[in-house]
Amino acid sequence: MSPLARVRVVLVEPQEPMNVGAVARAMRNFGLSRLYVVNPGPRVGPPWAQEAYWLAVHAEEVLDRAVVARGLLEALEGTRLVVATTGRPRELYPAPVVPAWEVPRHVLSVEGEVALVFGRETFGLTNEELDLAHLIGTIPTAPEQPSLNLAQAVVVFAYELFKASGGEEGPKEALAEVSALEGLFQDLGRYILEIGFTDENRFPYAMRRLRRILHKARLSPGEVQLLRGLLHQSRYAMGKKDGQS
Amino acid sequence: MSPLARVRVVLVEPQEPMNVGAVARAMRNFGLSRLYVVNPGPRVGPPWAQEAYWLAVHAEEVLDRAVVARGLLEALEGTRLVVATTGRPRELYPAPVVPAWEVPRHVLSVEGEVALVFGRETFGLTNEELDLAHLIGTIPTAPEQPSLNLAQAVVVFAYELFKASGGEEGPKEALAEVSALEGLFQDLGRYILEIGFTDENRFPYAMRRLRRILHKARLSPGEVQLLRGLLHQSRYAMGKKDGQS
Repeated sequence: MSPLARVRVVLVEPQEPMNVGAVARAMRNFGLSRLYVVNPGPRVGPPWAQEAYWLAVHAEEVLDRAVVARGLLEALEGTRLVVATTGRPRELYPAPVVPAWEVPRHVLSVEGEVALVFGRETFGLTNEELDLAHLIGTIPTAPEQPSLNLAQAVVVFAYELFKASGGEEGPKEALAEVSALEGLFQDLGRYILEIGFTDENRFPYAMRRLRRILHKARLSPGEVQLLRGLLHQSRYAMGKKDGQS
Repeated sequence: MSPLARVRVVLVEPQEPMNVGAVARAMRNFGLSRLYVVNPGPRVGPPWAQEAYWLAVHAEEVLDRAVVARGLLEALEGTRLVVATTGRPRELYPAPVVPAWEVPRHVLSVEGEVALVFGRETFGLTNEELDLAHLIGTIPTAPEQPSLNLAQAVVVFAYELFKASGGEEGPKEALAEVSALEGLFQDLGRYILEIGFTDENRFPYAMRRLRRILHKARLSPGEVQLLRGLLHQSRYAMGKKDGQS
């Protein structure tokens, strides 16, 4: 199976039907076929607008089979590596940031489903959406006009993936599923509040830093279990025998 | 002077105003500014159609300054290297064919003006137009849909040029010193024994798993501090106020 078959392209709240059609065509150009659309805007569909089909030249099937999801987490179900794309620099990213041409190395080195997530035309992804990413891909651009059109950003990432997917594949890492990882983050969040490591105000910042550490670690299913066990035991040692189990 | 200032993008007989606008935006994204249009189609202009400006976000100036030429040869006047782009395989190309990612090496290694030539949306460049090229650039694509949208083809070549033209470096990681990391592992080892997460027998195995996780995370100095703080607070919450400090 081509590694490209493991990759889903996730568009979060696209508003412009032509962009969705142009994305479908670009996916097909570079051997991708699995499109997920989170809360498409009213002019987009479903059913997909005629303008989307106009631009999806020879990629109508990509649109026909696109999956609509009600939230990013739903679109990520079953994935093991989540690559979010961003153009805007932020203070603190919850995952390592790499240029577009380094993304394929990460995608090809893991087993299982991979999501490549693209934000809204206007303001990209929210901080909460970025929190779900294990890796953040950026396209270096000229400072005069740093913002790429949505479909053109997809072109760059898809092109890099296609370029890299030709060669032989190396050994693969087995990563934990997103749902297991999110379970760990929930436990961890509850724990750091309980022990007073942070307060409600600073909580999002603290969690983002911890997410960043654990996203960098690219945890296996067994490692997620280990860390949940460690948290469980920490609570037990504090006398909270009603621990999460 | 940036090598990108020596590069002109030449569109031959584009018919769709939105494509011309999208090309202008993509040029600006990747530091290119000099657009030449050979015999634009009746809906395109000049003057450039409103639809072209709609898509030329922050690149209106690229359109305003675009040069209209009556033939490809006129658009190539003053250039020293002509790179034609093509998607269609032909029997015999009049110049060497290289993939898109090898074009920058050729562009950067010559002095003077360079033209990057893109054909019509429908059938690309004629054999006579290709004859003018010193080099032919192609974008490898999936066989199911080999034909790229015009602006998206420009994106790929412009992206590769920008990438190669220097300046941009991937973000660099600042890693913690080994001594700080070892301090963290010592704290962690003591903690997991205290809370009964492991016993003396299984201790080396447990530590090895935790080391693996944190080594994968490639911690920064600040992250080591954060995790030591978390351990400290965990012990404090257990009532061990004589914590490691």
